[in-house]
Amino acid sequence: MKFSFPVTRTTTPKKKQNPQDLVFGTVFSDHMFEMDYNPDKGWHDGKIIPYGPIMLDPSTAVFHYGQETFEGLKAYKASDGRALLFRPEKNAERINISNERLCVPTIDPDLMVEAIKQLVAIDIDWIPEAEDTSLYIRPFIIATDPYLGVRPSQTFKLYIILSPVGPYYKGGLNPTKILVEDKYVRAMAGGTGYAKVGGNYAASLKAQEEAIKKGYSQVLWLDGVEKSYVEEIGTSNAFFKIDGEIITSPLTGTILPGITRDSVLQLLKHWGEKVTEKRFTIQEVYEAQASGKLDEVFATGTAAVISPVGELCWKNQVITINNNQIGAISQRLFGEINAIQRGRTSDQFGWVTEI
Amino acid sequence: MKFSFPVTRTTTPKKKQNPQDLVFGTVFSDHMFEMDYNPDKGWHDGKIIPYGPIMLDPSTAVFHYGQETFEGLKAYKASDGRALLFRPEKNAERINISNERLCVPTIDPDLMVEAIKQLVAIDIDWIPEAEDTSLYIRPFIIATDPYLGVRPSQTFKLYIILSPVGPYYKGGLNPTKILVEDKYVRAMAGGTGYAKVGGNYAASLKAQEEAIKKGYSQVLWLDGVEKSYVEEIGTSNAFFKIDGEIITSPLTGTILPGITRDSVLQLLKHWGEKVTEKRFTIQEVYEAQASGKLDEVFATGTAAVISPVGELCWKNQVITINNNQIGAISQRLFGEINAIQRGRTSDQFGWVTEI
Repeated sequence: MKFSFPVTRTTTPKKKQNPQDLVFGTVFSDHMFEMDYNPDKGWHDGKIIPYGPIMLDPSTAVFHYGQETFEGLKAYKASDGRALLFRPEKNAERINISNERLCVPTIDPDLMVEAIKQLVAIDIDWIPEAEDTSLYIRPFIIATDPYLGVRPSQTFKLYIILSPVGPYYKGGLNPTKILVEDKYVRAMAGGTGYAKVGGNYAASLKAQEEAIKKGYSQVLWLDGVEKSYVEEIGTSNAFFKIDGEIITSPLTGTILPGITRDSVLQLLKHWGEKVTEKRFTIQEVYEAQASGKLDEVFATGTAAVISPVGELCWKNQVITINNNQIGAISQRLFGEINAIQRGRTSDQFGWVTEI
Repeated sequence: MKFSFPVTRTTTPKKKQNPQDLVFGTVFSDHMFEMDYNPDKGWHDGKIIPYGPIMLDPSTAVFHYGQETFEGLKAYKASDGRALLFRPEKNAERINISNERLCVPTIDPDLMVEAIKQLVAIDIDWIPEAEDTSLYIRPFIIATDPYLGVRPSQTFKLYIILSPVGPYYKGGLNPTKILVEDKYVRAMAGGTGYAKVGGNYAASLKAQEEAIKKGYSQVLWLDGVEKSYVEEIGTSNAFFKIDGEIITSPLTGTILPGITRDSVLQLLKHWGEKVTEKRFTIQEVYEAQASGKLDEVFATGTAAVISPVGELCWKNQVITINNNQIGAISQRLFGEINAIQRGRTSDQFGWVTEI
C-alpha cells in the first residue's frame, strides 16, 4: 500500500442508530481522518483518530475569509457484503479544482482516495445495510492560519468525516416543486461557481429560504449575466428532456461539474439517448412546455442521485411537468445508478471501488 | 447601562509587544467577547472571557458552507489619554446587512456597540499609543449547527477579538501599483458583493495572489457582467479624481458600503469638492489619463484609511498616476480622518465615540 495512516482507535464507541431513524448529516461515525499542511512539509501527518471536536484560535482564517473546500460521496453495503465506493477518484480530482481556485494546496488524489478507503474500512460497521441507506463521506479542508490579514493561508487541515444516512426522499422518488430564481444569483464567469467551496453555499441560502417560504423545495438558478440561461437546481445539476433530446448546461465555469451529472451523461449516451450539453434559456423550457414538448426535468447529485421535478414556477407562471409524475428516464437512471452503486448490476463503466 | 456583560478575567495576561514590532492581525489581546444564538433564546449570554480557542464539532456548518459574517474597526488612543472608536454604530448597522444576506440572525446594534465598548474597556491597555498604531477590532459571527445539510444554521456564535496593529504602511503613505483584473470577478448583482462575508474574500485570493506574482500589490475589480465598470480595489473602495471631479462607484449591490468611503464622501462634500457616485469604466480612466485629466486615484478602507495608487496596469497597458506621488486630496483626507480618529481635531461630524 502506497499510503498507510496510523490509527488511534476510540475507547468510547458510539451506539448506532436504527436505520429508519437516520437523518442526513446529523450522526457521525467513531473515527475521522485528519491531515495537516504547512509550506515546509506539504501535506503531512495524515492519521485516523477518534471523531472529536476541532480546536482553533478565534483568529483562524476559515472563520473570517471562508477559505474552505469540500467534497461529498458515499459508501454502500452491497447485498453480498462488499463495501463499495462510487467513483471516489472523481472527488479527489474535483477537490483539487476547488483547491486551485481558492489558493488551497492540492492533494495527491491517490492519497485522498486511500485516506477515504482506510477511514471507511475502520468504520465499516457504520455503513448501514437497510434499503436506500448509505455512509455519507465528507472530506473538507479549512485554512488554519491564526492571522487576520486577507491573504491565502499558509497552513491548512484536511478532515474526512463519515455520516450514516437514510434515503434522501423517504418513500422513494417524489417530484419536487422548484422556484426559478430571478433575484439572487449563484455564480458568474470569473467567480467560484464551478468549485465546491463554502462561499457558494452561504450565498445560496437566502434564495433557498425564500423559496421554501413560498412552498417550493428548491430554486432553479439562472445565469448571473442575463438571468436567462438555466444553470443548476439547488445544489444539483439540472437536466431537461425536450422533444426527445436530453439537455444539460455545459461546464463553462459557473456550473459544478457533478459526478452524478457525468455518470448520467455517460449512461444516457450508452443507452443511445440523444444527449446535449448546451446553454438553453428558461424561456425555451416554457415554450417547450407550451408546445407539449417538455417531457421530463430532473436534478442530479450525490445526496438524492436523481430528483425529478414536477413543477416549475418562473415569474409567477407555474408549469407542471409530466403530469407531476416521475418520468421514465428519471426512473431508469435512478434505478441503474443505485444498482451500480450497490453492486446489484455489472459495473461496466468501472465506477465502483471495493474497500 | 442598557447592556452589561459578565466578565471573566484572564489569570495569565500576555506580555505586550513593542509598538514598532506590531504586524497587522497577528497578536491578540487578553480577552474576547462571546455571545450565543439559538431560535429559543435569540442572541443571549453575551460575556467577556479570556481570549482562547474555539472548540467545534467537525460537522459545524461554518467549516462547510461558509455561513460567516464579520466587521472591522479600530480603537485609538488620543494624545489626551481618551480611548476613541470611529463610527462603531456603522459597523453594527453593516453587520446586519451582511447577516440578512446570509440568513444570520440580526443583532441589536446598541448591544453590538456596547459589547465592543465594554470589551475594549477591559483591554484598554492593549490600545497602543505610538504614532499611527491602533487596536483593530474584529467582530465575527459563525454558523454553529453540527449538521451537514445545506440550510441556514439555527445556532450561531458572535465573537469580538482585539489585535494591536502598527501603521498599515511602514514609513507612511506610499503609492501602490494596482493590476486591473480582467479574468476573475469579485461580485455580481444578486450575489453577496455588498456584504462582508467570508466567501467574498475566499473568492478574491486567487486574483490577489496572481497580481502579487506580477509585482502588483492588489487588483482593481471590474464589474462581473461587462468587465468594464470600476468597482473596488482589493478589499477597499476606489476613488478617482478626473478633471477636478472625484468619482466613486455607487452602492448598487456589488460594492461594499465602506465606512471610510462614506466618511470620505462626507468630508469631500464638506470641503466643497465636486463628488459624484456614478458608474464609470476603466476605459474612461485610461482616456482621462491620456488627455492629462486623471489627477488622483486612491483606495479607502479601515486598515489603511487612504491608500494612494501610483500605477495601474490594464491589459498590459501601464499608466502612472500623478507622477507616482501622493495626491493632494489623498494626503488631506488621510491627515483629516486620522486627526478625527485620534481626537486631534474637532469631531464636527460626531464620528467619534469615547470609551
